[in-house]
Amino acid sequence: MQRHFHEELQQVKDKTLRLGSLVESMVERAVTAMVDRDSNIAEETIRSDDKADALEIEIDDACLRLLALHQPTAIDLRFITTAMKISTDLERMADQAVNICQRAMELNAEPQLKPYIDLPIMSQLAQKMLRDSLDAFVEKDVPKARSVIAGDNKVDQLKRQIFRELLTFMMEDPRTIARAIGLLLVSRHLERIADHATNIAEMVVFLVEGRNIRHSSSPAI
Amino acid sequence: MQRHFHEELQQVKDKTLRLGSLVESMVERAVTAMVDRDSNIAEETIRSDDKADALEIEIDDACLRLLALHQPTAIDLRFITTAMKISTDLERMADQAVNICQRAMELNAEPQLKPYIDLPIMSQLAQKMLRDSLDAFVEKDVPKARSVIAGDNKVDQLKRQIFRELLTFMMEDPRTIARAIGLLLVSRHLERIADHATNIAEMVVFLVEGRNIRHSSSPAI
Repeated sequence: MQRHFHEELQQVKDKTLRLGSLVESMVERAVTAMVDRDSNIAEETIRSDDKADALEIEIDDACLRLLALHQPTAIDLRFITTAMKISTDLERMADQAVNICQRAMELNAEPQLKPYIDLPIMSQLAQKMLRDSLDAFVEKDVPKARSVIAGDNKVDQLKRQIFRELLTFMMEDPRTIARAIGLLLVSRHLERIADHATNIAEMVVFLVEGRNIRHSSSPAI
Repeated sequence: MQRHFHEELQQVKDKTLRLGSLVESMVERAVTAMVDRDSNIAEETIRSDDKADALEIEIDDACLRLLALHQPTAIDLRFITTAMKISTDLERMADQAVNICQRAMELNAEPQLKPYIDLPIMSQLAQKMLRDSLDAFVEKDVPKARSVIAGDNKVDQLKRQIFRELLTFMMEDPRTIARAIGLLLVSRHLERIADHATNIAEMVVFLVEGRNIRHSSSPAI
């Protein structure tokens, strides 16, 4: 029974990392669809959202089985309920990647407003936060979780910088407004992906240290 | 033991409804702070976010205790793990109310762009979705959950209508752009609150029927 427990727990970790990799690649491909102005990539990425939904359910089912059959307590119990919360965060990050794909297809249908420099950087930061938050989770690594939480500031700075630049475009030429808002929304989707990674990292600290370090997400524009 | 179990399960339901009421009143007051141009209300509402954080932790602790001490199975087990997921959704809705308060304070510092008609309607719809989704949860009421999911369309329609109207303002007078984007972001925060209510309703259907009806959130602008 005990050996089964650890094998099944390992499966939950593996599946969580697998869903994380899928979501990370969806985010990367969504931004590539925009940067390379290739709407086929966007359509393909949207289709892979079903896989993310299915993996979330697999993780939840594995966790429910662990809870029902092995009645874990203490840290194992909290690890499993945290995995169930994280699976939801991951699935919603996949939804945000889908939203970026939809913005990309709209943007690709219009002349390009400007070269996309900051949005890919923001995406890379968010992807790294996602990867590190899940590593922190499976390894119960609090310092790594804290570094993810600290990284959220950089994402917020980039978001504000992007906002100011887009505002300048819109002020100077009202014909750019619709496209600028499309780019603004992409930056907000990436921000939400980084927020989810931060939420995961906060749950890891809470899991290991039992302390709630959550602060209200309160981004200035 | 069995009587204790049902008492403690009832406490989880009561606390979930209590957190739901708090979040609903935070959303209402955030929009009032904007409509009445009263930044004191916004500041007060931001302060009550701590209560939402504390209640989320109380719910999770109560659920962990139930899982550890009573080892529930089948529907009781899934009800408790769903309550833990819902507590996270509610806390994030409170964060969205805080974001609306921040937009309200920025907007209140400028001349009012236009009378706010559609945003309060959108807020009332989102608040009702929140209330109904939690009633559906504690009563395991699938038809009510489905009505919440159907209601999300109206919120999306309003969001698109608000977007088109704001676009007209921005096109006609670039001096309105910053304020129009503030209002656009408020509509997005309200949309996310409605999305969380939809997520809760989808979890209720899954809880009772064991069927995954989740669709990727894919809002057109």
